[in-house]
Amino acid sequence: MNVLVINAGSSSLKYQLINVEKHDVLAKGICERVGTAGAFHKHGIDDNEVVIDAEMADHNQAMALVLESLTSGPTKAIDSLEEIDAIGHRVVQGGSYFDKSVLIDEDVIQKIDELAELAPLHNKAALMGIHACQQHMPGKPMVAVFDTSFFQTLPPKAYMYPIPYEMYEKHAIRKYGAHGTSHRYISQRAAAFLDEPLEDLKLITCHLGNGCSISAIDHGVAVDTSMGLTPLDGLMMGTRCGSIDPAIVTYLIDHENLTAQEVNDLMNKKSGLLGISGLSNDLRTIRTASEEGHERAQLAYEMYSNSVKKFIGSYIAVLGGVDAIVLTAGVGENCEKMRRMIFSGLNSIGIELDPEKNKERGYEREISSDDSRVRVIVIPTNEEYMIARDTYRIVEQLG
Amino acid sequence: MNVLVINAGSSSLKYQLINVEKHDVLAKGICERVGTAGAFHKHGIDDNEVVIDAEMADHNQAMALVLESLTSGPTKAIDSLEEIDAIGHRVVQGGSYFDKSVLIDEDVIQKIDELAELAPLHNKAALMGIHACQQHMPGKPMVAVFDTSFFQTLPPKAYMYPIPYEMYEKHAIRKYGAHGTSHRYISQRAAAFLDEPLEDLKLITCHLGNGCSISAIDHGVAVDTSMGLTPLDGLMMGTRCGSIDPAIVTYLIDHENLTAQEVNDLMNKKSGLLGISGLSNDLRTIRTASEEGHERAQLAYEMYSNSVKKFIGSYIAVLGGVDAIVLTAGVGENCEKMRRMIFSGLNSIGIELDPEKNKERGYEREISSDDSRVRVIVIPTNEEYMIARDTYRIVEQLG
Repeated sequence: MNVLVINAGSSSLKYQLINVEKHDVLAKGICERVGTAGAFHKHGIDDNEVVIDAEMADHNQAMALVLESLTSGPTKAIDSLEEIDAIGHRVVQGGSYFDKSVLIDEDVIQKIDELAELAPLHNKAALMGIHACQQHMPGKPMVAVFDTSFFQTLPPKAYMYPIPYEMYEKHAIRKYGAHGTSHRYISQRAAAFLDEPLEDLKLITCHLGNGCSISAIDHGVAVDTSMGLTPLDGLMMGTRCGSIDPAIVTYLIDHENLTAQEVNDLMNKKSGLLGISGLSNDLRTIRTASEEGHERAQLAYEMYSNSVKKFIGSYIAVLGGVDAIVLTAGVGENCEKMRRMIFSGLNSIGIELDPEKNKERGYEREISSDDSRVRVIVIPTNEEYMIARDTYRIVEQLG
Repeated sequence: MNVLVINAGSSSLKYQLINVEKHDVLAKGICERVGTAGAFHKHGIDDNEVVIDAEMADHNQAMALVLESLTSGPTKAIDSLEEIDAIGHRVVQGGSYFDKSVLIDEDVIQKIDELAELAPLHNKAALMGIHACQQHMPGKPMVAVFDTSFFQTLPPKAYMYPIPYEMYEKHAIRKYGAHGTSHRYISQRAAAFLDEPLEDLKLITCHLGNGCSISAIDHGVAVDTSMGLTPLDGLMMGTRCGSIDPAIVTYLIDHENLTAQEVNDLMNKKSGLLGISGLSNDLRTIRTASEEGHERAQLAYEMYSNSVKKFIGSYIAVLGGVDAIVLTAGVGENCEKMRRMIFSGLNSIGIELDPEKNKERGYEREISSDDSRVRVIVIPTNEEYMIARDTYRIVEQLG
């Protein structure tokens, strides 16, 4: 079965065409700056990639370009749209409605729309992607895969915020989490790598990219995660601050004379590694600068690793111990120095990296020492494959 | 040396007269609702207490009543004000100026006033207490003991928030901590109890009262603490929410149509145990209700214990292990069930309570099992004694 995986952002449209049985990516690409001047379209098969400047007034036009590139021209992957069997959409916010991936119908679309209140940019973008597919491929089965559904197993003590209970009843303010597809994928792969049933393991999964989140997974069930009502909560990230004293928000409104929305922007776009270093949200830039003696880059590096270290500790307490810690995404997969800093000083609680293994690059691998009571492993994430597989399973059952 | 310890709130004046050498409380009391109708004054020696309704227009008048009660009437403790050798004032916010207690002079007063920006109600109240003492006992040596100074040893990676660095430079937004006098006292007492030098110990100190904070103390040096720019940060408390997704603050402003100050009030006064249970900020009430089947009381109980458990885990990671966990204040000293819940499931990381010892009441005591790798001890806090002792030391050096 060929599944077209769509990840629509407010001004972008990412896609992969995946043959699920063969675990094979037939083509992939992205339309960027959709709806603005300077829009372009990257499309590729294997290592061949073309970049085309093209006007795209909206996601509908972007989708038309994507489908054309898939079926014609030098980088075509299939002969016609008939060869696309189903479409899987990434949706950020599934609220309390969706505890698993679902076939998209009018009711699902209406609920995604309703939940846009909680993730305004993201859910509206997903709907644009869904509508574009409906227009260009009417009747094709579509599945919604939610970033939040993996965390619907959290107990109330983990998902409730200690603010007046009425705010939960009235606005559904609670922890929803995010990156759930990634955490689900790497927890499954980790169990396979360790050759133990997921149901026998206590895992801490760390998705450390530009966005960062960390989850406690108890015998296959997510019991806590760091992202909250929104993806701003929890860890320090590339441009996001994560959890801070909430009085800082009101302080900035009062003393910087900002609106709530402006403080939100400051916390989402100007904070984290970028805010502290003043240089970049990219850990590679921070690392280089810190090695050249840039003090604020060094501070940003230390704060980031400290933030991850503290959450790992808190989830060890939540789980009452841990069998393995799993790292993924840009930083988790690639940054040897950051991993070293995160795990420094944890020998006495049974976590020890092997310095040589930590330097190696590769696919799924263990980086803890032979003596480490807790195993530390790196698993490259693959959210698109998870979305394709969920779509495959649901569509296959339609018969 | 007799030290009068003053803890001035915005509408209250608490005091103790302490003979430091004898470690003896000569008298203590509180003026409440200062400046409002219904003001009253409680004053006592040992178990004898008198409650007097009295008009107090301001802290000056309250102080006059206090000094009168100390020197005359049936509960008098001393013959004249001459027997008060020095005065120690609790001050909440010492900012980055004060890393230890100091003799009060005009410069110190000016800095306390300047720092009122960071703790408006508290520092202004402390100044009222200081001025009242100056008026009634001119020339008497006075010492300021700050809630924050114990945490001036935090490294930048712990005290900086990952928001734009300019906010630190411009507004001094950073973590200051609070309850420092209590954490300092119980860490010293814990070392004495364990009969080991404080400099050899990794301690986690938990002040769990109506306000709650927790600190990581590495060989006598505070390296992290849960309260932040303000005492709202960190743990869930009686009426305070602690750390939450900062996007909740802006969400409430937008969707509940509240001002920043109103959200601040909601987070400080209507959240925590009170907000979740809808019943009370008092854990005893919550406990009774939860045992009678009140679901939201049960949830509040679980969230509170989970909040402490997670911070303990994170500080174990920060310290790279822990020798002893120290509990104090109303909940920490008295609530057997809460302690049981906080430490449940932590056997595998070396922390185990002894159920019988945990039930005992008393003074300083150990409640961990003989097998527990980490020792858990209860130390009743005594901030007034610490303030008196600091005052004694500083004033004694004046010669």
